Amino acid sequence: MEPFDVVDIIRAKRDQQELDPEQIAWVIDAYTRGVVADEQMSALAMAIFLNGLNRPELQQWTNAMIKSGVRLDFSKLSKTTVDKHSTGGVGDKITLPLAPLVSVFGVAVPQLSGRGLGHTGGTLDKLESIPGWRANLSNEEIFQMLDSGPGAVVCAAGADLAPADKKLYALRDITGTVDCIPLIASSIMSKKIAEGTASLVLDVKVGSGAFMKTQEQAAELARTMVDLGSDAGVNTVALLTRMDQPLGRTVGNALEVQESLDVLAGGGPEDIVELTVALAQEMLACAGKPDEDVAAALKDGRAMDQWRAMISAQGGDVDAPLPVAPCQHQVLAEDDGYVMCLDALQVGVAAWRLGAGRARKEDPVSAVAGVEIHAKPGEAVRKGQPIATLHADSDSRFDRALDTLEGAWTIGHDVPELPQSLILDRIAQE
Amino acid sequence: MEPFDVVDIIRAKRDQQELDPEQIAWVIDAYTRGVVADEQMSALAMAIFLNGLNRPELQQWTNAMIKSGVRLDFSKLSKTTVDKHSTGGVGDKITLPLAPLVSVFGVAVPQLSGRGLGHTGGTLDKLESIPGWRANLSNEEIFQMLDSGPGAVVCAAGADLAPADKKLYALRDITGTVDCIPLIASSIMSKKIAEGTASLVLDVKVGSGAFMKTQEQAAELARTMVDLGSDAGVNTVALLTRMDQPLGRTVGNALEVQESLDVLAGGGPEDIVELTVALAQEMLACAGKPDEDVAAALKDGRAMDQWRAMISAQGGDVDAPLPVAPCQHQVLAEDDGYVMCLDALQVGVAAWRLGAGRARKEDPVSAVAGVEIHAKPGEAVRKGQPIATLHADSDSRFDRALDTLEGAWTIGHDVPELPQSLILDRIAQE
Repeated sequence: MEPFDVVDIIRAKRDQQELDPEQIAWVIDAYTRGVVADEQMSALAMAIFLNGLNRPELQQWTNAMIKSGVRLDFSKLSKTTVDKHSTGGVGDKITLPLAPLVSVFGVAVPQLSGRGLGHTGGTLDKLESIPGWRANLSNEEIFQMLDSGPGAVVCAAGADLAPADKKLYALRDITGTVDCIPLIASSIMSKKIAEGTASLVLDVKVGSGAFMKTQEQAAELARTMVDLGSDAGVNTVALLTRMDQPLGRTVGNALEVQESLDVLAGGGPEDIVELTVALAQEMLACAGKPDEDVAAALKDGRAMDQWRAMISAQGGDVDAPLPVAPCQHQVLAEDDGYVMCLDALQVGVAAWRLGAGRARKEDPVSAVAGVEIHAKPGEAVRKGQPIATLHADSDSRFDRALDTLEGAWTIGHDVPELPQSLILDRIAQE
Repeated sequence: MEPFDVVDIIRAKRDQQELDPEQIAWVIDAYTRGVVADEQMSALAMAIFLNGLNRPELQQWTNAMIKSGVRLDFSKLSKTTVDKHSTGGVGDKITLPLAPLVSVFGVAVPQLSGRGLGHTGGTLDKLESIPGWRANLSNEEIFQMLDSGPGAVVCAAGADLAPADKKLYALRDITGTVDCIPLIASSIMSKKIAEGTASLVLDVKVGSGAFMKTQEQAAELARTMVDLGSDAGVNTVALLTRMDQPLGRTVGNALEVQESLDVLAGGGPEDIVELTVALAQEMLACAGKPDEDVAAALKDGRAMDQWRAMISAQGGDVDAPLPVAPCQHQVLAEDDGYVMCLDALQVGVAAWRLGAGRARKEDPVSAVAGVEIHAKPGEAVRKGQPIATLHADSDSRFDRALDTLEGAWTIGHDVPELPQSLILDRIAQE
């Protein structure tokens, strides 16, 4: 005999009533067990989309999702743990240099990641372009890599971490209930809290290439997630960062690994370096080490050494060349002038159509596909000059990608005024 | 290849946009075909619950449900057709005397009915307490009964009538999206329009024993249904009628048939006679016969003759005695005084718990179970006098029914002021 009737719970949220902690705990558990049907949960999700969840409701909702699976425990590690999560942007390969960089300073980085869906790429998809690298580790292997190994690990989140979230996320995707702040926040934070990290730095993206189009929305999401982290005892801070143009000059799996290697070798695009250093400083501050010279560890090869140890430990051949696309196509500037802006969403969708991403979670991705950008905002171009190179497994991919890129670069006659920093705001525990 | 993506349609309604006629036609058709999944339709139903449908959207939604099945055509009948639909009340047996009464005047009454669910009884369940009577007729049999037979028929609606509504109604029942005016209106009207009647009189119940608790809500539902009927070429009018106390003095299947026979014999409770006559006059006015002496046809046996012909034509033995409950239990007045009010909902739920109704649509109902009311509002009672008799197949039914009836009768010391008429308002085409 079940203690609640799900129809009463749906009606309560529909009628803008606050749900009891017991109702929320039951409905998530019953959904995980299959007692609450998909059509009932989707009606509840729509009612939540339109009527919201307040802070105690959302905390309970998130807790219930955590309790649907296991919660990892790193308290026996010899060092503290800190993780980073990005809400997803185009060309966002920051995790790749960031995890080894932070581990240089004796802080453990357990980065349990997902795969890409839609126009934003997945960290695991990127790393799988390295020959031999494997994403799936046992909990024991993760612990060992953090404790006695390189100190940083990027791997797949196990199926036993917040299974209710996996089920609910798939349902939201087909029922028009994805872009809802409480449901996004609880989905991200349930996984991150279950992952067992002591501290968490959130990179909340704002702009045309992000889920959150305005700074106001992004700030609300960031505040919601910081509150959830704090309520669960995870030291959480968020940066709001620009996602109007792609990060760096590459979008695609092997292409982004190559660009990350440039950063780890002390070079690479300025914006990637800026964001990697800023996030590393936040993570180290959370871990009680606010004064480390992070930039130096990129320049002097310490971060690269950590990268090689981390990739090798998961079977990756760090000396093997990265795969290269058999087919390439140049995109040429149509005018003389300056690049005023470059639309992140269009570039992300083009890379996806070239084969870098997947439409359904069971689709394979191409390691070599993507977009290499030669002209970014603020840079001068001449008509006929290549502004991008498209990479794909097959020439047949180029037509749709080129359609998608139509108008992605805006070229003007005056030097544009560009923002000085990617970082818009910082939101910490109150 | 489907012309629309259901997620776009859900998102549009979620974001308070108007849906296109093509989107609505497609989504109902695709749901009927199983291309749109239950979890998607329930998210859309919740978005409609919270954001509404405007008049063109609702008209299209209703049309699409009609088009999911067949639409009957009575245009070749030698007489015009008029039907009545009640939104459901406790003790509402009006269809039983009403259909034969209207047919006295040469107007055809095709009354395609449903079964009861929850605390309001179903007309078919009531008639099935008559030995031999069968609810299922072919479309040819219905036509014949109207054309050359008694002129009135009460039978089950075929599965081919608005099948999308059947599927959607079952879904709404388990997803908290039942009590929503556009969805109620389109559910009722799609079936009634598909049934092919030329005119329709709606009895929209208001009060504690009805779905619509306030006159304002009931008027909105009535106006919405009258508009839908008019838009579809069905001459539609609605009466708003009180449903605070049960109609008549019986609630239950055979008990209500017996009370209907009393009315057809020229007697019976005043409220039943008032409402039967008022609805018959509305129906006849719709059929172009506004001046008939309806009350006389109840008194002089013409309506009873039509009843006997109608019941016999569907196999019912009009001379057989109605079944009687083996177990009866008296409810006694706890005080001297006047009955101030009698709660319809409590009596309805008690009858249901005695076995007169069903919790799930596959449950059987008891023909004999129900409540016989001896003291109605305005009547004087003495402490210890029977105010009701409970009827059931088994004594074990009485305890829960008695719990339900706790406080159903309010007894006071002054004669209560009661409303003069059951009829609150009349809503016709503008």
